[in-house]
Amino acid sequence: MKQVVTFGEIMMRLSPPLNYRFIQTDSLEITYGGGDANVAASLARLGIPAAHVTCFPDNELGQAAAQSFQRLGVDMSHTVFRGERLGLYFLEVGASMRASKIVYDRFNSAFANLQPEWLNWEEILKDAQWFHWTGITAAVSATAAQACRDAIKVARRLGITVSADVNYRRNLWQYGQKAQDVMPELVEGCDVIVCTEGDADDLFGIKPEADTSNRFESVAKQLVQRFPQVQKVIATNRETLSASHNRLTGIMFNGQEYIETQAYDIVPIVDRIGGGDAFIAGFIYGSLTYPTEQAALTFAVAASALKHTIHGDVNLATVAEVEQVVGGDTSGRLLR
Amino acid sequence: MKQVVTFGEIMMRLSPPLNYRFIQTDSLEITYGGGDANVAASLARLGIPAAHVTCFPDNELGQAAAQSFQRLGVDMSHTVFRGERLGLYFLEVGASMRASKIVYDRFNSAFANLQPEWLNWEEILKDAQWFHWTGITAAVSATAAQACRDAIKVARRLGITVSADVNYRRNLWQYGQKAQDVMPELVEGCDVIVCTEGDADDLFGIKPEADTSNRFESVAKQLVQRFPQVQKVIATNRETLSASHNRLTGIMFNGQEYIETQAYDIVPIVDRIGGGDAFIAGFIYGSLTYPTEQAALTFAVAASALKHTIHGDVNLATVAEVEQVVGGDTSGRLLR
Amino acid sequence: MKQVVTFGEIMMRLSPPLNYRFIQTDSLEITYGGGDANVAASLARLGIPAAHVTCFPDNELGQAAAQSFQRLGVDMSHTVFRGERLGLYFLEVGASMRASKIVYDRFNSAFANLQPEWLNWEEILKDAQWFHWTGITAAVSATAAQACRDAIKVARRLGITVSADVNYRRNLWQYGQKAQDVMPELVEGCDVIVCTEGDADDLFGIKPEADTSNRFESVAKQLVQRFPQVQKVIATNRETLSASHNRLTGIMFNGQEYIETQAYDIVPIVDRIGGGDAFIAGFIYGSLTYPTEQAALTFAVAASALKHTIHGDVNLATVAEVEQVVGGDTSGRLLR
Amino acid sequence: MKQVVTFGEIMMRLSPPLNYRFIQTDSLEITYGGGDANVAASLARLGIPAAHVTCFPDNELGQAAAQSFQRLGVDMSHTVFRGERLGLYFLEVGASMRASKIVYDRFNSAFANLQPEWLNWEEILKDAQWFHWTGITAAVSATAAQACRDAIKVARRLGITVSADVNYRRNLWQYGQKAQDVMPELVEGCDVIVCTEGDADDLFGIKPEADTSNRFESVAKQLVQRFPQVQKVIATNRETLSASHNRLTGIMFNGQEYIETQAYDIVPIVDRIGGGDAFIAGFIYGSLTYPTEQAALTFAVAASALKHTIHGDVNLATVAEVEQVVGGDTSGRLLR
Amino acid sequence: MKQVVTFGEIMMRLSPPLNYRFIQTDSLEITYGGGDANVAASLARLGIPAAHVTCFPDNELGQAAAQSFQRLGVDMSHTVFRGERLGLYFLEVGASMRASKIVYDRFNSAFANLQPEWLNWEEILKDAQWFHWTGITAAVSATAAQACRDAIKVARRLGITVSADVNYRRNLWQYGQKAQDVMPELVEGCDVIVCTEGDADDLFGIKPEADTSNRFESVAKQLVQRFPQVQKVIATNRETLSASHNRLTGIMFNGQEYIETQAYDIVPIVDRIGGGDAFIAGFIYGSLTYPTEQAALTFAVAASALKHTIHGDVNLATVAEVEQVVGGDTSGRLLR
Amino acid sequence: MKQVVTFGEIMMRLSPPLNYRFIQTDSLEITYGGGDANVAASLARLGIPAAHVTCFPDNELGQAAAQSFQRLGVDMSHTVFRGERLGLYFLEVGASMRASKIVYDRFNSAFANLQPEWLNWEEILKDAQWFHWTGITAAVSATAAQACRDAIKVARRLGITVSADVNYRRNLWQYGQKAQDVMPELVEGCDVIVCTEGDADDLFGIKPEADTSNRFESVAKQLVQRFPQVQKVIATNRETLSASHNRLTGIMFNGQEYIETQAYDIVPIVDRIGGGDAFIAGFIYGSLTYPTEQAALTFAVAASALKHTIHGDVNLATVAEVEQVVGGDTSGRLLR
Repeated sequence: MKQVVTFGEIMMRLSPPLNYRFIQTDSLEITYGGGDANVAASLARLGIPAAHVTCFPDNELGQAAAQSFQRLGVDMSHTVFRGERLGLYFLEVGASMRASKIVYDRFNSAFANLQPEWLNWEEILKDAQWFHWTGITAAVSATAAQACRDAIKVARRLGITVSADVNYRRNLWQYGQKAQDVMPELVEGCDVIVCTEGDADDLFGIKPEADTSNRFESVAKQLVQRFPQVQKVIATNRETLSASHNRLTGIMFNGQEYIETQAYDIVPIVDRIGGGDAFIAGFIYGSLTYPTEQAALTFAVAASALKHTIHGDVNLATVAEVEQVVGGDTSGRLLR
Repeated sequence: MKQVVTFGEIMMRLSPPLNYRFIQTDSLEITYGGGDANVAASLARLGIPAAHVTCFPDNELGQAAAQSFQRLGVDMSHTVFRGERLGLYFLEVGASMRASKIVYDRFNSAFANLQPEWLNWEEILKDAQWFHWTGITAAVSATAAQACRDAIKVARRLGITVSADVNYRRNLWQYGQKAQDVMPELVEGCDVIVCTEGDADDLFGIKPEADTSNRFESVAKQLVQRFPQVQKVIATNRETLSASHNRLTGIMFNGQEYIETQAYDIVPIVDRIGGGDAFIAGFIYGSLTYPTEQAALTFAVAASALKHTIHGDVNLATVAEVEQVVGGDTSGRLLR
Repeated sequence: MKQVVTFGEIMMRLSPPLNYRFIQTDSLEITYGGGDANVAASLARLGIPAAHVTCFPDNELGQAAAQSFQRLGVDMSHTVFRGERLGLYFLEVGASMRASKIVYDRFNSAFANLQPEWLNWEEILKDAQWFHWTGITAAVSATAAQACRDAIKVARRLGITVSADVNYRRNLWQYGQKAQDVMPELVEGCDVIVCTEGDADDLFGIKPEADTSNRFESVAKQLVQRFPQVQKVIATNRETLSASHNRLTGIMFNGQEYIETQAYDIVPIVDRIGGGDAFIAGFIYGSLTYPTEQAALTFAVAASALKHTIHGDVNLATVAEVEQVVGGDTSGRLLR
Repeated sequence: MKQVVTFGEIMMRLSPPLNYRFIQTDSLEITYGGGDANVAASLARLGIPAAHVTCFPDNELGQAAAQSFQRLGVDMSHTVFRGERLGLYFLEVGASMRASKIVYDRFNSAFANLQPEWLNWEEILKDAQWFHWTGITAAVSATAAQACRDAIKVARRLGITVSADVNYRRNLWQYGQKAQDVMPELVEGCDVIVCTEGDADDLFGIKPEADTSNRFESVAKQLVQRFPQVQKVIATNRETLSASHNRLTGIMFNGQEYIETQAYDIVPIVDRIGGGDAFIAGFIYGSLTYPTEQAALTFAVAASALKHTIHGDVNLATVAEVEQVVGGDTSGRLLR
Repeated sequence: MKQVVTFGEIMMRLSPPLNYRFIQTDSLEITYGGGDANVAASLARLGIPAAHVTCFPDNELGQAAAQSFQRLGVDMSHTVFRGERLGLYFLEVGASMRASKIVYDRFNSAFANLQPEWLNWEEILKDAQWFHWTGITAAVSATAAQACRDAIKVARRLGITVSADVNYRRNLWQYGQKAQDVMPELVEGCDVIVCTEGDADDLFGIKPEADTSNRFESVAKQLVQRFPQVQKVIATNRETLSASHNRLTGIMFNGQEYIETQAYDIVPIVDRIGGGDAFIAGFIYGSLTYPTEQAALTFAVAASALKHTIHGDVNLATVAEVEQVVGGDTSGRLLR
Repeated sequence: MKQVVTFGEIMMRLSPPLNYRFIQTDSLEITYGGGDANVAASLARLGIPAAHVTCFPDNELGQAAAQSFQRLGVDMSHTVFRGERLGLYFLEVGASMRASKIVYDRFNSAFANLQPEWLNWEEILKDAQWFHWTGITAAVSATAAQACRDAIKVARRLGITVSADVNYRRNLWQYGQKAQDVMPELVEGCDVIVCTEGDADDLFGIKPEADTSNRFESVAKQLVQRFPQVQKVIATNRETLSASHNRLTGIMFNGQEYIETQAYDIVPIVDRIGGGDAFIAGFIYGSLTYPTEQAALTFAVAASALKHTIHGDVNLATVAEVEQVVGGDTSGRLLR
């Protein structure tokens, strides 16, 4: 099977153990993650060949980050080792009504300083069937956005499916260009996008019609009109009952109709980070494997739900585990 | 008070910390357990003299296993140290809809190679009042089944109460004899058995009558008819709402009537392993202590519920703690 | 802003990790706490200058205890280092229907042997606006009670607000005087008291009127009649659904009317210890900051609820976090 | 084989991990130990039946302490559970020129309040061949000293060998009697004593003769003259090169001649505590097993050296391991 | 650069933390290793493309083992996932005169049950320049030995260099054939062998000549005469001063002359396991990179020395680090 | 006593546990340190009032860093909370011939962006008797260097002693000015400097005279000539035998004569970082306390030696501990 290729920054994630707060911990647990890399790793765990393209500083920390994805079976052979520092983020895990918190420390990372010419996308994508990127990559630096633009162009030419999690994070856009100027051109090249109502408004000024009964559908319809290449808009609807209890539903507009899945309650949540990336990986897996969009969407949200029970950014659930949830068994009954 | 004696394999249990998956852990936590040994240890904690009979390899791992039960007050003086390896099992603890998983690595253990003649049951049982075994022991090897047969025979002759958890595990029966051939003879010698509907069907071909309103009672009635020595059939009814939330009810047929307890919700579950063994230990304690079967059954299921809040295979709840739950206080209010 | 000053013993708290029982742990986690010191530390975290007055043995353990509160920003410069041993308490954390347990080991501590003349309250309180103490301090020894009496007297003279958590613990009163004899005189000097129905009965023989529809209000009315200086009686109403799930409501009688807050569900509970102290700190903060008693009380109970999600005796929630809960957001939504 | 019986306090030992200092640790590791109990446990590990007599508070901490020695195979069936608190000691482990430090917190322990009449020595010693005690037991309280006196009397009557580690610790003697008054009567009943030059001077006013070339021999000769029952005086000569490097030699006076062993270098030291107790256990083992005093003494010092490589108060070296060192192999070569 | 390919079993290694003994630990740290796989992983770290061929059970434990080498950059794409159990070994780490101990639990592993026909050596070795195996692989089972025979045959035909660590372990040979019958045929196909005097005697009956001044040279000369394909015999000379202090020298006979390196003192030893494998990987690296045998041998022993300072079976030292030691800097001076 | 004030960056230090390498760790231990702040904290531990001036980002990580020094008794009330990120450094701890390694990640830190006008040195230094800074502060940014210049100026005016560790780190100087241009002006204002031969050459072009028998003295003489305010040049002479074994000697030129101390062997080294800062703190303590320079220097080097046995950047040795080493006792004998 041909590869799914993803592109973006991988950060070292540093978390106090358990529910400890930053000001009371004496140690930090390391995992590594990044929106797009998490998709690649989740796919590798689901048995789909996956490669991730990124840039690390040429030091032991960069090597450790690369090795952590290599361990999960992601093809990291396109990694560029060049630059000064590894992007970091600090995560404090909440509980009940206390929110989890992220402190980013990612500016001036090796990835942000990546030069587009370091990446030969013709070569990288030659065995690929799908290319996935996120709005975060475009937010990091002008050069990262340019590399993304290059990749999408090559992917289109090679007839590769392109997906994006548009994922608007206001605080990240600090290199002098506006998301509203950069993103539309990139999204134009996509077949599938993950886009919430908030993102659609913030990035494209698209709001639900006033009298709609289904705000997501209304927005998604406008998106596919604005971006003709885009055929599917997907998202998860997340009810945040507490830091320990969320409820997820998968939603989709496929150009014709609105589709949704059942809701999944997750309680307790072990680790909420990467839940969206697990959803996307599940959707790519489902799209490549199942005959119907409903099946793909259900697999996606079940995969996302399971991710919340797993430590770290990456969904380590197997196909069999996701399919058990898809099949209606959320009992968590002991397997001997 | 005379001893309760149990017989069976003790394994080293190896679990990743917290909810980590096998493929992401760098360490494993050790506890030791075995279906029958857990009963002995739980009884010791409840103040009932208890001895366990088993076989360990003559190395430091076998000694560590023996010492772990010695620590809990179980008389391990009958242990045979002989043979090659300690049986192991690996446990991954799930959460929410993600199931816990066990990978067994117990074949060719010292216990499986135990020779019946190494055990002098007349001597072992001379101060006993109760002998308990499980279907797992009979499943491990022909020689273990034979030792079990010997023990039951001696126990009957000495007028000792015999109980069994028939506990059918298809995967374990690999030594060339069928459970369906071996188990009936062993169960014939028992006074009390733990047997679910599934076990009754698998082992004895006994199914609930077609039109019964109480399937357990229907099966249990047939069991006591088939095995005249058996006077009580008990079980827990477990609703598995998720890996983190179960609901338990104690059920019993005493030859005349069906008895059940209230249901206990356990949320969150700390450790579900050994819940059934805690139930049996509770029932033995209750039978030796309380005037009514209802009281014994209620103590048993309350003990089992508390076990789910305790790490490891063994129920470390005290009589006072179980009685508080029996008395209706499940508030977990802080005790100063 | 002038200081809040608190007075009382700080103990080393020793807990098995996670939900381990005392008899199965090989290590203990250290935090430090004491009913009144917790109030000071919570206030410091809320940005209120706070000092705590106590006595530690002149050894490395006493220094470690002092430093742990220094770390949190509490002014520990009045600490007396003199005496033999540091008070200890051992905490086993329960789950579901299994209760948490405390084993105290605090007799003959340096604090209990504190001599009143070692403390110069005129000096200590010269920059203070509020003095807080608890019934535990009065219970520890005759000399501690005397020091408390001295402090209240000076505080009254200096026009400082005095609050007390009357907190009756029968087991502690072992120095030959009765709480019923000692406490009334001390409470006479207070402006605000935390007092439950049980405390009112045990300490002052005050019971709710027979036909009242609001037992707390009934008791509180009698308290303010009996102690004219007392203007507010506050408490939390705690529903203990399980060791992992509590529900809290703030209640108050202000001399005229009964006020209560909404109820907050806390599930799962990370650490229940110090929940009452967080409530008091929240109430002091609120009283110094907000225009209405309702606002102060709501802040207090929201602070207490958040404390239950934080490890250790001390509430490490910030003003912003408490205000978010006060504002109705208990969703625990991830903050990036 | 008949039992060796020991008598004395067991404390919970609490140590920061690794070489952390008290003021920088957030956790403490638990082991349990006591001078005489360590001897019993070391003997049990060497295959000698051993019982220990002590008193614990009737709470979970006392049970945990008892279980820790039960785990090691010590007969704890004579334990009295009565009283208030468990004795504690805090240990900070040094390195290189930084010394390890102990902070004791053992006053008013359950053991110190033990009443002599709670112990039936006739019963306890009926299957014993050897009784061992230490000067620490006599130092703890008048009642503990009395119980020791009782035990020695019964042991003498039953013809049981009695040994003592006289071990003078000035700080401990606080109950109003002087070691110099109490100890001589107790030592009179002993066959073997561990006594250094310092102890001999402090306790009995015995100093080496002015012109002796062997100060230990000189002192030991005077001891056996003063206490005619004493037949052997033993000790280790410890050169403390650093907290990480010690050198040990076993020395002995057997009434006729001075015997010494080779010196053993221990580098690095894993845990120095209990080194003396391991020496005594080794000497008792050797006395019961080997034909010559030289062999017993060599076994004793080799056992002590190995103890320094093992975490905790108790020597967990086996007979085979000690004999390997005795045989001259200190290479620590990997055993497969 | 073409690959180095290695073949053999990878086991899960389970060790108590620090210097804890098996009977006192509650957790085990996981690493993975195997004599030949360690060579591959060490080479990957040195920048040499390396692949390892092995067989794991088709479960999560097998996957975890494979991923651990994937993480280190070893090509694991030839892994066969088939069979029942993962081989294990338990390692207790000694100190000073206390030896480290290994308890193997590797019989009936998936690797031992590997069938030769599952491996297509023509395919596996098509891009290789070097093939390395160990005597342990030949010891595990007749089928493993046969697979090794197949591999050597193909390697010879393809003109690939073959090396072996003959490594005789008496206890492992339990499948009915003798090492003395199996090994000669396999060694015949090798260009380079690691063989100590003891191995030469045990496996081939070759002893040093009576009057030789260099026993290793004498043995090595006879080996190259007996096995004409063998051109180099190498070994490390290890002085075991204690479990914490070893001294290593590299020695070699190249058919013409005896070569040796300086001696390296390692103190303290962090982890001695895999020291020999690091030596071999260093020698392969050196042979592929340096112009002289002396340079290769010096690199090999310096690499081995550094391995002793690194936790786990695999040498994680880089080329730069080894070269610094080769260059004479063993000062361990802080690098900023 | 008046305060010692220090100025400079405090970084979060992140280290794998024990001797693990960066590429094999899953967690990092946190301590905080900075060359000048370590001096303040060490002085606080020695009982000298100490304040540190720095700048942290206004987030929870900055607060944690501030609290860690507050815990140690350093007056942190002058801290400016402003800016984006906390400086970090990653430390891998070596052993034997494997060097420890530091990866810095400190560019663009809040401290580097500190503006001189944020600091009111008249106010900060009004109660000070000594001001200490390091060359690292001058290297971080032009604004930090300017703030340092301001401080020195004010200190001189107020008659405060000024000391500096000139500490040249080539890699740090990246803001466009040369150390050789910046440092001389700053050093001109100092009374005491720590300066090695290498520093003197790199920063000031001062080399030992060709034929000198004491290179340090030769360099120091030239320094005091060049900088007339400087009265003492001090340093430690460190022999790096291995990462686990160093030997330290204190050396000094006081304008008239060369003084040195005995050498101290440290084996094993627990943590080498901050050894130089402990030396300086020791020298400041000694200068303020002892009558002779020899005594001050000996105290300094003994303090530094002890620091190597303590985890973290800060010397937690007490005056009593240092004096014991000064007094000649490096035996590390157990203190009860």
